[in-house]
Amino acid sequence: MARRKSCTLAEIVKRFGGELIGKGAVRVHQVAALESAQAGHITFLSQSQYLPQLVGTRASAVIVGPEARDATDLPRVISDNPYAYFAKVSNFFNPPIPVKGGIHRSAVIEKTARIAKSASIGPCAVIGKNVRLGARVVIEAGCSIGEDVTIGDDTRLHANVTIYPRCRIGVRCLIHSGVVIGADGFGIVKEEGIWKKIPQIGRVVIGDEVEIGANTTIDRGALDDTILEDGVKLDNQIQIGHNVRIGAHTAIAACVGIAGSTKIGKHCAFGGAAMIGGHITIADHVTVSGGTVIMKSLLQPGTYTGIFPSALHQNWLKNASHLRRLDELVEKIHELERRLATPARRQS
Amino acid sequence: MARRKSCTLAEIVKRFGGELIGKGAVRVHQVAALESAQAGHITFLSQSQYLPQLVGTRASAVIVGPEARDATDLPRVISDNPYAYFAKVSNFFNPPIPVKGGIHRSAVIEKTARIAKSASIGPCAVIGKNVRLGARVVIEAGCSIGEDVTIGDDTRLHANVTIYPRCRIGVRCLIHSGVVIGADGFGIVKEEGIWKKIPQIGRVVIGDEVEIGANTTIDRGALDDTILEDGVKLDNQIQIGHNVRIGAHTAIAACVGIAGSTKIGKHCAFGGAAMIGGHITIADHVTVSGGTVIMKSLLQPGTYTGIFPSALHQNWLKNASHLRRLDELVEKIHELERRLATPARRQS
Amino acid sequence: MARRKSCTLAEIVKRFGGELIGKGAVRVHQVAALESAQAGHITFLSQSQYLPQLVGTRASAVIVGPEARDATDLPRVISDNPYAYFAKVSNFFNPPIPVKGGIHRSAVIEKTARIAKSASIGPCAVIGKNVRLGARVVIEAGCSIGEDVTIGDDTRLHANVTIYPRCRIGVRCLIHSGVVIGADGFGIVKEEGIWKKIPQIGRVVIGDEVEIGANTTIDRGALDDTILEDGVKLDNQIQIGHNVRIGAHTAIAACVGIAGSTKIGKHCAFGGAAMIGGHITIADHVTVSGGTVIMKSLLQPGTYTGIFPSALHQNWLKNASHLRRLDELVEKIHELERRLATPARRQS
Repeated sequence: MARRKSCTLAEIVKRFGGELIGKGAVRVHQVAALESAQAGHITFLSQSQYLPQLVGTRASAVIVGPEARDATDLPRVISDNPYAYFAKVSNFFNPPIPVKGGIHRSAVIEKTARIAKSASIGPCAVIGKNVRLGARVVIEAGCSIGEDVTIGDDTRLHANVTIYPRCRIGVRCLIHSGVVIGADGFGIVKEEGIWKKIPQIGRVVIGDEVEIGANTTIDRGALDDTILEDGVKLDNQIQIGHNVRIGAHTAIAACVGIAGSTKIGKHCAFGGAAMIGGHITIADHVTVSGGTVIMKSLLQPGTYTGIFPSALHQNWLKNASHLRRLDELVEKIHELERRLATPARRQS
Repeated sequence: MARRKSCTLAEIVKRFGGELIGKGAVRVHQVAALESAQAGHITFLSQSQYLPQLVGTRASAVIVGPEARDATDLPRVISDNPYAYFAKVSNFFNPPIPVKGGIHRSAVIEKTARIAKSASIGPCAVIGKNVRLGARVVIEAGCSIGEDVTIGDDTRLHANVTIYPRCRIGVRCLIHSGVVIGADGFGIVKEEGIWKKIPQIGRVVIGDEVEIGANTTIDRGALDDTILEDGVKLDNQIQIGHNVRIGAHTAIAACVGIAGSTKIGKHCAFGGAAMIGGHITIADHVTVSGGTVIMKSLLQPGTYTGIFPSALHQNWLKNASHLRRLDELVEKIHELERRLATPARRQS
Repeated sequence: MARRKSCTLAEIVKRFGGELIGKGAVRVHQVAALESAQAGHITFLSQSQYLPQLVGTRASAVIVGPEARDATDLPRVISDNPYAYFAKVSNFFNPPIPVKGGIHRSAVIEKTARIAKSASIGPCAVIGKNVRLGARVVIEAGCSIGEDVTIGDDTRLHANVTIYPRCRIGVRCLIHSGVVIGADGFGIVKEEGIWKKIPQIGRVVIGDEVEIGANTTIDRGALDDTILEDGVKLDNQIQIGHNVRIGAHTAIAACVGIAGSTKIGKHCAFGGAAMIGGHITIADHVTVSGGTVIMKSLLQPGTYTGIFPSALHQNWLKNASHLRRLDELVEKIHELERRLATPARRQS
């Protein structure tokens, strides 16, 4: 989000495609939501439920789908995927801050680290032995990068990220504050009632264009590596156990936990606070609803859900109490079936 | 929690009200729990279930409600809200450490930052361009404060907090270690199977007297701001998605997640690990029980619950298996009803 | 994980016991998983389900249980607990990095801190007044250790850990990055609709040989202390509320929350994302399954579960809808029972 520029709607259509309807000369300089947009803003309509807000918007222009081409008189762009179109326009008006290469005087860098001249190292960041940082890598304040870590070109670490030794991170990744990559997996074994630690000698290997949200943790493998393939998008406070593999272009919402050794397919989507058990396999193109616990492999694509429906507390109390005795209820139904199966005259 | 002082019970009653029974001259210097209190301590009884512990307490004085006025012979204060009274006494004996203004020599401060002389900046803290810190603000070790952030008077950040650029925090807030405020919301859009990032250009705006627990994350808005109103209290490891608004004086226990664009009313209370879906509205004065998933708007005040009742594993196995086939059970009941509705003689 | 050494299988058996079958002279230098092992590696089989992988392994040697003694021709060790045996071998090949005592020039140490000469303080670490650090303690980069904290011999804090004042940590503990120990418990009391803070004046007291995973938070006690006994093992992103006590040798998987004042027994095990309510008691030797919410005391050992079974979304919709009306279903069953209890001829 560097500096603002302004341009005409016609220039936007020239750059990003779509059909222009109305005054192409209208100038816009920023994106905004339907309700808070002002003159000079371009907004978008992605779902018909927001049509009422479209009517009242003060934006100068709007991006809509074909079904809404006549829903407004504003200068507009018609696009098959208005939300994706909007994303492009937003990226155009809000480009990443250009990286000024250089190492802050308070950063602590081991001599054997190899850091591209175009990389930027912030105050009080600590870079370990043999670390390699690619072109235009940004390491913000207070980050700690362990020995032998490799980070690819154009990857940015926000402040206070910790990377343990030997992990590898690809190009164009974005890692938010408080993330911990490569801490020990939870490998313990009981011997005579006492838990003994098992050394965690694998790494974390992260592909290209991966985003990792604030305070997410990704454990290093016990023996082999924990792997995130290209294009994986993780929200905040996600926990990835040791030896997990997450397939390319899978998106995971906040507060999800994935237990050790589980293999997740490509193009999956997990809703917030879904919990995925260990040592299972999730196929490609599986969607897991938020709040759902998955304990067994899901080998077919589809959407899976398991949420206890919420209710007013007094209603929940009743239903929960029945649920606890569901076994008895089933037995009663069987008994009723047995009695109905016998001749009617014997019932009395 | 600076220094200790001692005072008499009569002085406490003079300062904080309530009815004194027994020796007002007894001196106390600290608060304590019923069971661990010693001579010189003042304790309290807030729930009748702890009456047995009251009998055995070694405290010098006690705060009780009217219903327990005769439950002890100890010097005591009668108060309608013994727990709130106790809180006042505890705050009196354990005042915040007075702030010594000053900037540690190892802190890194941009020249354009405007920092009150009475503010305190700890070791290795990093303060960005144009940051404004009010009177008596405390920024502890290792915090990173991004460009253009504003923090109001008397707000304290414990060690290793990260605030992203442009966020605003009110007066008298308390922010615990590991908190990340203003990281990007999880804004992605799929185009030809690939997730594209949407710039997150909103801010986080936090009111006055807000407390935020350790390792909690609050994402910046996508277009508009994420907002916490005055007096909101957040426990640890809470996740607040982009564009959420939390009404004044709402309290949220640990491990709660609130997905993007959800609006929470004032005076709500959420139990631990409650999970609140995105794009919904929660009315004022709603209570959500711990462990409950809320996926739809709650427009009426009340307490809402949705917890799967736990049981011994073998019992759970049975009930879960019935639950999976609940649809069949319902069909069986309907069949039984149909059969009973037909004349008895035809049943055989 | 310092340097590699190699040794013969016979030497391993001499050191760690077990029965040697096959060529004792084979040399190994590292542990590995069945599938990824190469020549020079020793692997293990702990569960019969992995027998197929045993057949194809390229390892030079393997550790197996008595039941699998003839399942391979490889040089092998027979052990009653192959996984524990493997852990010992792994610890042998991957010993902790020896600690080089010394204080990095960028660390900030209060004069009154007492630090063993053999302790190691990393870059930008901050050590408060009167802190005591035992022999061979390691404090990595960016850690913040509050006033009056005591840390026992051989304990290691990875980068960016925060310990609040007055907490105590035992010997041989391992604390991962992002952990926050001793932040205020969530102690608030409502007075005229406004939440007031209650000072949290207890400490966190942690025993010996405790491991704490990345970004886990452990709150200080309100009045008394929060206590973790010896040998407790905590995974990542766990939240421990104020005044919780966790018994010795209890192991807790990631994303678990334990609400305030709850007492957990010894030798318990909690699966990932289990949520334990406040003010309850869990007996020794209790196992709680992952994803389970526990709201009442569990006074008998055993395994407790409460997971809503997941299903394809359309099936879940049906079952959830029935579940919401479980009370009606129960009433229907009762009605059927009543009707069947009356003489058959009256039914028509």
